[in-house]
Amino acid sequence: MKYQFSSIVKNSDPTYAQRMYALMRGEGVIALSGGNPAKEAFPEEAIEKISQKVIKEDPVSIFQYTATEGYLPLRRFISRYLQEKGGLHASPEEILITSGAQQAVALLCQIICNPGDMVICDSASYVGALNTFKCYGIKTLGAEMDEKGMIPEELERLASENEKVKMIYLIPNFQNPTGVTVPLERRKALYEVAKKHGLLIIEDNPYGELRFTGENVPSIKSFDSEDMVAYTGSFSKVVAPGLRVGYLIANPEIITAGIMFKQFSDVHTAGWSQRMCYEFFTTTDTEAHIQKIRNFYSKKCHLMLTEMEKHFPKEISWIVPEGGMFIWCTDQTKSIDIMELVQKLVKQEKVAIIPGDFFTPDPDKLTHSFRLNFTVPSEENIVTAIAKIGKVLKEVLRG
Amino acid sequence: MKYQFSSIVKNSDPTYAQRMYALMRGEGVIALSGGNPAKEAFPEEAIEKISQKVIKEDPVSIFQYTATEGYLPLRRFISRYLQEKGGLHASPEEILITSGAQQAVALLCQIICNPGDMVICDSASYVGALNTFKCYGIKTLGAEMDEKGMIPEELERLASENEKVKMIYLIPNFQNPTGVTVPLERRKALYEVAKKHGLLIIEDNPYGELRFTGENVPSIKSFDSEDMVAYTGSFSKVVAPGLRVGYLIANPEIITAGIMFKQFSDVHTAGWSQRMCYEFFTTTDTEAHIQKIRNFYSKKCHLMLTEMEKHFPKEISWIVPEGGMFIWCTDQTKSIDIMELVQKLVKQEKVAIIPGDFFTPDPDKLTHSFRLNFTVPSEENIVTAIAKIGKVLKEVLRG
Repeated sequence: MKYQFSSIVKNSDPTYAQRMYALMRGEGVIALSGGNPAKEAFPEEAIEKISQKVIKEDPVSIFQYTATEGYLPLRRFISRYLQEKGGLHASPEEILITSGAQQAVALLCQIICNPGDMVICDSASYVGALNTFKCYGIKTLGAEMDEKGMIPEELERLASENEKVKMIYLIPNFQNPTGVTVPLERRKALYEVAKKHGLLIIEDNPYGELRFTGENVPSIKSFDSEDMVAYTGSFSKVVAPGLRVGYLIANPEIITAGIMFKQFSDVHTAGWSQRMCYEFFTTTDTEAHIQKIRNFYSKKCHLMLTEMEKHFPKEISWIVPEGGMFIWCTDQTKSIDIMELVQKLVKQEKVAIIPGDFFTPDPDKLTHSFRLNFTVPSEENIVTAIAKIGKVLKEVLRG
Repeated sequence: MKYQFSSIVKNSDPTYAQRMYALMRGEGVIALSGGNPAKEAFPEEAIEKISQKVIKEDPVSIFQYTATEGYLPLRRFISRYLQEKGGLHASPEEILITSGAQQAVALLCQIICNPGDMVICDSASYVGALNTFKCYGIKTLGAEMDEKGMIPEELERLASENEKVKMIYLIPNFQNPTGVTVPLERRKALYEVAKKHGLLIIEDNPYGELRFTGENVPSIKSFDSEDMVAYTGSFSKVVAPGLRVGYLIANPEIITAGIMFKQFSDVHTAGWSQRMCYEFFTTTDTEAHIQKIRNFYSKKCHLMLTEMEKHFPKEISWIVPEGGMFIWCTDQTKSIDIMELVQKLVKQEKVAIIPGDFFTPDPDKLTHSFRLNFTVPSEENIVTAIAKIGKVLKEVLRG
């Protein structure tokens, strides 16, 4: 049978991401290309105990269908936790548990946008979100960034020029892929532009807990007097991504619509996963657990930066992140073909990195950049890989 | 802020389902309105053991990000199982693990349809699927049914009259809500009509394992020489719905597109849930487990039918199901206001049932029917509730 595919399928290449990832895989390759937490960061012993207890004492809460909006004690916990940690006020009625933060972004597409609508993103942004927008027929516009994140004047320009813009997508803490953290004044400036144009801000904060240096910056949602911000959080980086638990925080009108779309998408998020997040945070010393992850990642990040200082040619600049998982490097000469660099590195040196152009909303825009992940590789592999990248960078720059 | 909602939100009432369900809830109400498995059907002891073992021996498979298409050993198992049990040939490459069968239906909407396209369903069908279609802007057309399911001439008429029809949605075994099982010749006749019009058939089979009487009927997918059928299955009724594990079986072209939409919707189905399904089916006597569930439901179904014979007035007819979870009852006089009946039952007798009109693709179509669930209520409650329904039916019929 010849299938009548949807326009979205007809206009996309479903195998693109797979092919890109395949390019970066291979026997014995050191991957600085991932975006995963380190396997050492998983609280497996605690979860094993919690799991046994809950299956024994309250199996129905895990095995039966449950409410689409999520496990109420978990929603109450998130409400308390965000209030205490970040001054973010949200009642449980403003919290929807999602199957990862990815689903929260997908639901917002369904809630707010029609096919053909637009969303403004950073000029390099999380490729998962960019693709989610595409899956709903939403066009992505990239706003120029500087070292403080999206430039408000650029946001203003794009919002003025494009009537169909409905949302702005931001990752204000340790952004993926650039590692940039948006300072408070910049957050406020972006908020004002959004307010002027009546645009919803998606504030995606998967890495917020992974700060190893500097001061916490208040979330945009925490000063959102107009209820213009839909905040998405995740347990993927502080418990484990395999659980697939995230959450959406927004005005109850948006949450109500989100519940409808979620109900008819996956009914509810897996009961065991929700329960493990709740019990882990309420019965164990999670602050110590998260501090352990921070120290672990901080050490690797510091090591990678030190090795980069030693080995990278002066033509390469980078952003020193205050947390998160990534370091963003840019060729100031704009002379390197980054795709060639990536292929050369994987074939010749068995080191995988991700080309910056992979993260651009505008496929014709060159970033002259690449992204390095420091959470997955071992310290030994970081040392080896950075030296090799440095060597190849010098080769391609100096012929 | 005044939100700019999507057309789908503007044209729907996100609270409708909640309000309907609220109508059927209440302190001390006996619910024959559910669609859940009985809590006695959950294999909690087996899962507890499996869970402990897997978290100890292979934690990364549960905690880390995994492949969007699903856990390969589970996909291989499903391939073998469906071949052995039902003569359905599908390679692992034709199987995508989904977060419940609901997600499989949602993915098919994204893969095949554009907003404004149409799907033909039974004139009374699974309300979750009907709402999923609506969530993607797909119009549902109800084809008339008889005691063998959808009438092929009706399918032919609707497909001929409506150019925008892209898919047909069927639940051939113990259909929800009618309990009807479509005989083989009818399946073949429907397949021929679909083939003539180049339409994809969604064959949704959540209840297939729950047959207590009669012979298994081959799935449409098992004789699908044209690769026209997308088959959706679920572990919700044979393991537990709270796990949220289902699967989509279709041609690799469709699966590839499905992987793309799933990746940018929830990345992958929870690792623990997938692993529990796999280990449960490959390391325990699941045939005995499923037989236990069948016997348990069969007994309740038989009891409900016996009590209905005793108490229901002769004006009410019903379909005797060969399996599944539901009995469909129809007022042959077409004189009862079913919504009033439902409200009277819950207020006066504290018994909840679902009005048949809740299941119609066409909101103006009256079914003169109601659905009873026999899997959730206890035997005692079945006896009590059926007597009360019988009493109220006589009251409303005879004044």
